Amino acid sequence: MENILFDKVLSVLLKIDGQDSRSTAIHVTLETSTSAAPLHRKELLVRLTDDTDSFFLYTLALGEDDFQFLKNQQGLLIDFGTFPQKLIELLELCLDQQNKESPKFVLHLSKMDNSEHSLAELAIVETNPFKHLTHLTLKVKPGSDLEVKQFLAKCLKQLQEEHRQLQSHLQTTESSLKRQLMQSHE
Amino acid sequence: MENILFDKVLSVLLKIDGQDSRSTAIHVTLETSTSAAPLHRKELLVRLTDDTDSFFLYTLALGEDDFQFLKNQQGLLIDFGTFPQKLIELLELCLDQQNKESPKFVLHLSKMDNSEHSLAELAIVETNPFKHLTHLTLKVKPGSDLEVKQFLAKCLKQLQEEHRQLQSHLQTTESSLKRQLMQSHE
Repeated sequence: MENILFDKVLSVLLKIDGQDSRSTAIHVTLETSTSAAPLHRKELLVRLTDDTDSFFLYTLALGEDDFQFLKNQQGLLIDFGTFPQKLIELLELCLDQQNKESPKFVLHLSKMDNSEHSLAELAIVETNPFKHLTHLTLKVKPGSDLEVKQFLAKCLKQLQEEHRQLQSHLQTTESSLKRQLMQSHE
Repeated sequence: MENILFDKVLSVLLKIDGQDSRSTAIHVTLETSTSAAPLHRKELLVRLTDDTDSFFLYTLALGEDDFQFLKNQQGLLIDFGTFPQKLIELLELCLDQQNKESPKFVLHLSKMDNSEHSLAELAIVETNPFKHLTHLTLKVKPGSDLEVKQFLAKCLKQLQEEHRQLQSHLQTTESSLKRQLMQSHE
C-alpha cells in the first residue's frame, strides 16, 4: 500500500565533483508504504526524478531503524512518526524561496563523482548572514536498470490511463458542443 | 536511423513447455536500422511486445551475416534485401486469417521453458490438410532490464508527446466550438 505525501517539482542545486554547480528542476516525491509481509514494516520512500530525463532516478527507503541511525547521526529531535511532516515543511520552505534572488532555503544534490552507481546526498541548506546551515542530509541511491524499468512501467501505465480519459473527455466535449450548436441553429 | 516497416497487433499461439497453448495478442514491430559507425551495417529489428504487459519484450536484430546463416539453415530462396517484404507478407497472411474459425496461417511463439532469460521462437506456420508447414522460424531474445528500461523510456516519451498534442487539440476544439456557439446565440 502506497500513500503519496508530497509530489512537486523543486529547483535543486546540483553539485557533481569536478563540475560547476548548476540549478536544475527535480521532481521530489514522498510516499509512505507499508509492507505486509514478513513484518508490518512502515517506510518513508523518497524519490527524485527528472521530468526531462526518463533514466534519472534516485531513491531512499527509510524504515524506523534507518531513521534511528539518521536521528543519532544528525542530532534530530523528532521521532519517525513526525519526520515525514517535518521533511515536507522543509521542502515547502525551499519551494517558497526558490524564485527569490537570494533564497534562504536551498535544496542541494551532491555527487562525489559522476559514475552511474555512486550514492548522492540530498541536503536542505539554510543560508543565513553567518553561515550555511544544513538542516537535513539524506543519502539517495541511483536506480538500477530493474528499478528504473519498474518505475517507467508505472509511469507509462498511469499516462496511458490519463490519455484514455482525455480521449474520452475530448469526444464527450466535442459531441456535446456540436449538439448544442445544432440545436441553436434549428 | 530507424524506419518502421510494420507495426501491428497480431494473435499469437503461445506455447510454453509444460503449459497448455493459449492464444494471446502480441504487438509485432519491424524496423530497419542503419548503424553509421564503425561499419555501415544495415539491420532488420523484430520486436515483440505486449500492450497489456510493459515488461514483455522480445527482440531480434538480424544483420546481413545473420541472414545468410538463417537462409542456409532454413533453405530460404530470397536475399537480405527482399527478406523484410517477404516477412511482412507472411505476417499479413496471419493477420488476415486470425479471426477465421480455422486459420490457415498462424503465428506461434514457443518457449522451451518459462525462465526469464531463455530464447523464444517465433514461427509462421501454415496448416494444410496434410501437415503443419513452418515457413519461417526466428529466434527472439527476451529483453534485459536495460533494454526494457530503454524501450519503456521511448514509449513514455512518445506518449507524453501524444498527450500534449491531445491536450492542445481539446483546448482548440473546445474554444472553437464555444465561439461558434456564442456567435449563433447572438
